[in-house]
Amino acid sequence: MKTFNSSNFKLGILGGGQLGKMLLQPAMNYGVDVSILDPDPASPCSYFCKNFHLGSFNDYNTVYNFGRNLDLITIEIENVNVEALKRLESEGVTVYPQPHIIELIQDKGLQKDFYKNNGIPTSPYAKIQNREELKLYAEKFPAMQKLRKAGYDGRGVFKVKSVDDLPKSFNDPSILEDLVDFDKELAVLVARNASGEIRAFDVVEMEFDPQANLVDILFTPAKIETEIEKRAKEIAIDVVEKLKIVGLLAVELFLTKSGELLVNELAPRPHNSGHHTIEACITSQYEQHLRAILNLPLGSTELLQPAVMVNLLGEKNFVGEAKYIGVNEITRLDGVYLHLYGKKITKPMRKMGHVTIIDHNLDNAFEKAKFVKDTFKIQA
Amino acid sequence: MKTFNSSNFKLGILGGGQLGKMLLQPAMNYGVDVSILDPDPASPCSYFCKNFHLGSFNDYNTVYNFGRNLDLITIEIENVNVEALKRLESEGVTVYPQPHIIELIQDKGLQKDFYKNNGIPTSPYAKIQNREELKLYAEKFPAMQKLRKAGYDGRGVFKVKSVDDLPKSFNDPSILEDLVDFDKELAVLVARNASGEIRAFDVVEMEFDPQANLVDILFTPAKIETEIEKRAKEIAIDVVEKLKIVGLLAVELFLTKSGELLVNELAPRPHNSGHHTIEACITSQYEQHLRAILNLPLGSTELLQPAVMVNLLGEKNFVGEAKYIGVNEITRLDGVYLHLYGKKITKPMRKMGHVTIIDHNLDNAFEKAKFVKDTFKIQA
Repeated sequence: MKTFNSSNFKLGILGGGQLGKMLLQPAMNYGVDVSILDPDPASPCSYFCKNFHLGSFNDYNTVYNFGRNLDLITIEIENVNVEALKRLESEGVTVYPQPHIIELIQDKGLQKDFYKNNGIPTSPYAKIQNREELKLYAEKFPAMQKLRKAGYDGRGVFKVKSVDDLPKSFNDPSILEDLVDFDKELAVLVARNASGEIRAFDVVEMEFDPQANLVDILFTPAKIETEIEKRAKEIAIDVVEKLKIVGLLAVELFLTKSGELLVNELAPRPHNSGHHTIEACITSQYEQHLRAILNLPLGSTELLQPAVMVNLLGEKNFVGEAKYIGVNEITRLDGVYLHLYGKKITKPMRKMGHVTIIDHNLDNAFEKAKFVKDTFKIQA
Repeated sequence: MKTFNSSNFKLGILGGGQLGKMLLQPAMNYGVDVSILDPDPASPCSYFCKNFHLGSFNDYNTVYNFGRNLDLITIEIENVNVEALKRLESEGVTVYPQPHIIELIQDKGLQKDFYKNNGIPTSPYAKIQNREELKLYAEKFPAMQKLRKAGYDGRGVFKVKSVDDLPKSFNDPSILEDLVDFDKELAVLVARNASGEIRAFDVVEMEFDPQANLVDILFTPAKIETEIEKRAKEIAIDVVEKLKIVGLLAVELFLTKSGELLVNELAPRPHNSGHHTIEACITSQYEQHLRAILNLPLGSTELLQPAVMVNLLGEKNFVGEAKYIGVNEITRLDGVYLHLYGKKITKPMRKMGHVTIIDHNLDNAFEKAKFVKDTFKIQA
């Protein structure tokens, strides 16, 4: 790959959402020449990148034309045209994470096979083609049906409680997973650069909002035993080593009630579960991803202070121009960092921003997080 | 002023240099609509702001037209057209810092008069119109002659050692200051919001490079007695209270060999002496400036870890497209943050970037800073 040693180094990002914006912020510290491709003319990155290209990252020609004059391409969303990336790679453009890894992760069936073939603990599953095939697995119900492709933020997931649910199930290629009786959901972010250096962040614990099926609150250090922390990192690092991914990998895990760790899913990019690293760690996940793909030494993942992160979702019943309620009240608290993504239009459950709280004491951070959740609203 | 409560809030920044870029980065977290005015089409902000306006911030009409549809205007450089800002203010646009304060600080003569009239300790001075008048003060030589206006980064300053130096002295309105036999140069950054809330950062100690007349290395905590730290903050807060500035004020002070603190000069904006706050403090100076001008509660100025900052200047004898030497070597050290401003062209002594080093131990940070200074080069 071309070495980064001047401001003429051309970095392209597929996707201009909030993850792209948070990746752009540290990229601004490296003086690299950034181009971004996104289909939304009002995407968060559109306001902050001179080389913003309007177009679909799913379209072969659009991606190919976007990438052909760049030195390095990365992603902030995995739902991109892999064929175009493969061609670009074959023509000498560096693409990190590597296209074949994006392809594997795009498909939950291939993801599960990868775990199985590499001895990575995960829940039992079956691959099915359609609803007809799903019926054959009735003895497994209740179980989770997940579309193999295009699932995102809880979409593409259906709990088949019994055969009565079959009419509502997906009639597309899916996986059927055994229900996991989990105690906690955890995430580990691990980066690997092209030289093979690997560093993991501390484990984060996630609490989901069952209604939105989105992470509601996230915190670190996780409230788990040292042995579980260690094991979770080992598993995540093992995944990274076996994939040989270059860039950041988010590894989501279940901690079962019997103390077992099972890999749930992967994201080959900066991730919602690592927002707090911007303020709470020596190196943020975004900076770490940049370092990995630029093949620079990875940064320290040391936690400066305990952290809690709260997603800011559009309030239900409000659609239209976003209004922020409570900015003054929450920024009054020390160690509270407001991140608004600048999306002009709010919709119920749309990710409009997040708040990170850091504090010497995790319980204090929780108190502040509760106040933030009760006080800050995004309405229209 | 208009309250910030939506992504339609329009913020304008006069100046698109590195300070503007570092102000833009946290502004991206507030989802505000940012416009930037700068005469350089390749200025650091030009690549990262959709509403980048090319034009002079010294020109009345340019500034007026830039500002008339904005909600709030601020500066990253004080050398701006104040008359246009006053008109905008009179027409209802909020301008922070207030134009009359920018005007006062633009003129070193008015600055000195302000100190004198408000009991703020500073070195003795005389205001002179031209070289003829300067001759009358021969008994004060050696002394420092400083142009009243347009001095910046050491330009506009001349040491008049004796009458023999008169031919090389400035023939323009200046101040003549007694030489200060100082032990240390210190800086205190203080922010004040429109509601009158004030918060100061910890004192930073600066070591100047006599050749470039630029801050060479900066660190905090300063190596001064607690009593001096306290007194320096009190003086800086006193200046802020008397100016009633809204925004950030950088107060540079001399600590004389007899233990006296004297205000040297002011900057009504984020400042080179506060770069380290990005990583080393709960709230960065840039975020704090934004909070102040948006009239949000100010953030905690708590230092997370001791910090050292090194300016990265263009190496002498190199002019042309900037090449970075040593990126890998310095980013290998934990807690080392590289900030490259993205200026395409390097020139001897041009500010091309900076590096902040944070570490639990200040001496370790110094070690790393020394390595950075020896290793990292900007050549062409």
